[in-house]
Amino acid sequence: MTKTLDELFHDTLKDIYFAEKKILATLPKMAKAAQNQELKVAFEKHRVETEGHVDRLEQVFAIIDKKPQGKTCAAIVGITDEGAEIMQEYKGSPALDAGLLAAAQAVEHYEISRYGTMRTWAEELGLDDAAGLLQETLDEEEATDEALTEIAKTAVNQEAEAV
Amino acid sequence: MTKTLDELFHDTLKDIYFAEKKILATLPKMAKAAQNQELKVAFEKHRVETEGHVDRLEQVFAIIDKKPQGKTCAAIVGITDEGAEIMQEYKGSPALDAGLLAAAQAVEHYEISRYGTMRTWAEELGLDDAAGLLQETLDEEEATDEALTEIAKTAVNQEAEAV
Repeated sequence: MTKTLDELFHDTLKDIYFAEKKILATLPKMAKAAQNQELKVAFEKHRVETEGHVDRLEQVFAIIDKKPQGKTCAAIVGITDEGAEIMQEYKGSPALDAGLLAAAQAVEHYEISRYGTMRTWAEELGLDDAAGLLQETLDEEEATDEALTEIAKTAVNQEAEAV
Repeated sequence: MTKTLDELFHDTLKDIYFAEKKILATLPKMAKAAQNQELKVAFEKHRVETEGHVDRLEQVFAIIDKKPQGKTCAAIVGITDEGAEIMQEYKGSPALDAGLLAAAQAVEHYEISRYGTMRTWAEELGLDDAAGLLQETLDEEEATDEALTEIAKTAVNQEAEAV
């Protein structure tokens, strides 16, 4: 078999493209479910950012002369299924927001790992523009994760505990 | 519904306990598949560490007076399924190690997000000993992720590209 790094890059690009679209479909549900206003706003903000991430991925597909195409990403399906389970099991519970936050941070970390990997591969493949685009999204995912950590430290978990 | 943070903590503990055991079963396969010696050694080292993580989780179960018990974690199933797919699709390929590295970093980031969340919850629940144990594992997961990033930057990706 002769699959090389450029094919792995393309395969993984399809994987994260699927993942971003899945996240785009999931974030409005999480925003709707969230009880804390700050968390609601954070999910809505991240939904808007995610549209930009999809757009950047389409630019990366263009750079490598491929059509934007998703490929089922079992990881994000599993991670978002866990989020859906939390929404169901903890509906109306004081711990719902803490669970939503945890689910969202699992999503962010998956993306951070994927974008970090793909940025490094893009650099090694000499795809400097693609590396730049992937880095921009990576920065936003890391900022989102930090913002969620701050929200976790303040209101949300105390609410969960205070019953 | 009255599910509170202590129940969410217990549910998530079962989730990560399942995940660690799944990882423990997966790492020897990844070590066997890896072509690069440095990567092989890193996977073997992490397998030994993972035994320690399982042991710490059992201590946390004891702290909250619960029996160690796993609960299927859809996220880790999805993430490790992707790793298995890489092992199959890239078998004998120069990009195999790069793909294994990416899969391993996705696993690490999932764990980093889970241990970070649970450490914070443990602190809020006043479970200081549990928070300390979870922090120890979090530190090791972060160190592993950094070590994998270093390996990615050096040998492995260049090998993938050099064909």
